[in-house]
Amino acid sequence: ARPKVGYYYTGKNALSLFTEQISRIKVQDVQSVPVVVTVVTSAYDAVVTMFLEDVGSVFVVEPGGILAGVVSRKDALKVAMGGSDLHKMPVKVLMTPVPKIIVTSPDESVLMAAKKIIENEVDSLPVVSPVSQGGNKAQEVVGRLTKTNIARLFVELGEGRGGNTYS
Amino acid sequence: ARPKVGYYYTGKNALSLFTEQISRIKVQDVQSVPVVVTVVTSAYDAVVTMFLEDVGSVFVVEPGGILAGVVSRKDALKVAMGGSDLHKMPVKVLMTPVPKIIVTSPDESVLMAAKKIIENEVDSLPVVSPVSQGGNKAQEVVGRLTKTNIARLFVELGEGRGGNTYS
Repeated sequence: ARPKVGYYYTGKNALSLFTEQISRIKVQDVQSVPVVVTVVTSAYDAVVTMFLEDVGSVFVVEPGGILAGVVSRKDALKVAMGGSDLHKMPVKVLMTPVPKIIVTSPDESVLMAAKKIIENEVDSLPVVSPVSQGGNKAQEVVGRLTKTNIARLFVELGEGRGGNTYS
Repeated sequence: ARPKVGYYYTGKNALSLFTEQISRIKVQDVQSVPVVVTVVTSAYDAVVTMFLEDVGSVFVVEPGGILAGVVSRKDALKVAMGGSDLHKMPVKVLMTPVPKIIVTSPDESVLMAAKKIIENEVDSLPVVSPVSQGGNKAQEVVGRLTKTNIARLFVELGEGRGGNTYS
């Protein structure tokens, strides 16, 4: 992806043009594949999955990929340091459950999602789509937005890539 | 900090102007205060410090603030999961030691430092200044650059702040 060449702007400053450009980049343009475990797994297996996939958090899902919770490295380390046996602990005990989880959606702007990450002091957000489950509203996990995705986008934009990729 | 108003560019596209602007932002403009423990502490105390300060990694230093190693949540979780007793383990056993650590400096561009974070798959970089220690070159820890710093900068630039702050 090369920067746009020969496309000249007048009458606006570079920063406001950049702001407009950034606001058009959506979560689905930069998100990663979600790493999930089921609600019936053990806390130990959730942490093993975290290492095998080399991710900082895993999402806990019910059948149909419905978001039930999130387990972060920080959560796991706190419990492991406390001397609990993770083998015997259900992941439900370790996870932060819905509705305490901050989420984003594929068509939210990355800028808004990045603000959520900063303001709520989390490392990642589940990307979810609304679904109906037995007449109730539920959230299907469709992706994962991390601080790494944001940092990578920053590098791409800073290197002049992204003009074609995201517009 | 408000965006610059009434400052118009012509003859260049917005992305290349933004690229120029980003390349002038230095690590020292966005870095955080480093959280450090000494080389004689235990692995347990290093992890406790990590929780007390709510950081994802702590830097291990020799007298004079000389960088000796880094301990991440991932390192700590791996060892804790393995059933080791962190109380009895010196932090030196847990840490990733110099010279395996990727570092940055206060006057490096944030863009270059962000590339290091992405390419080396780390959450943070120690910000160091070169010092002489008994005739040998050493690195004094002067800051901490994290993916959170990068994400916060992205939000500031995306919201049209940063034009005054960093130029």
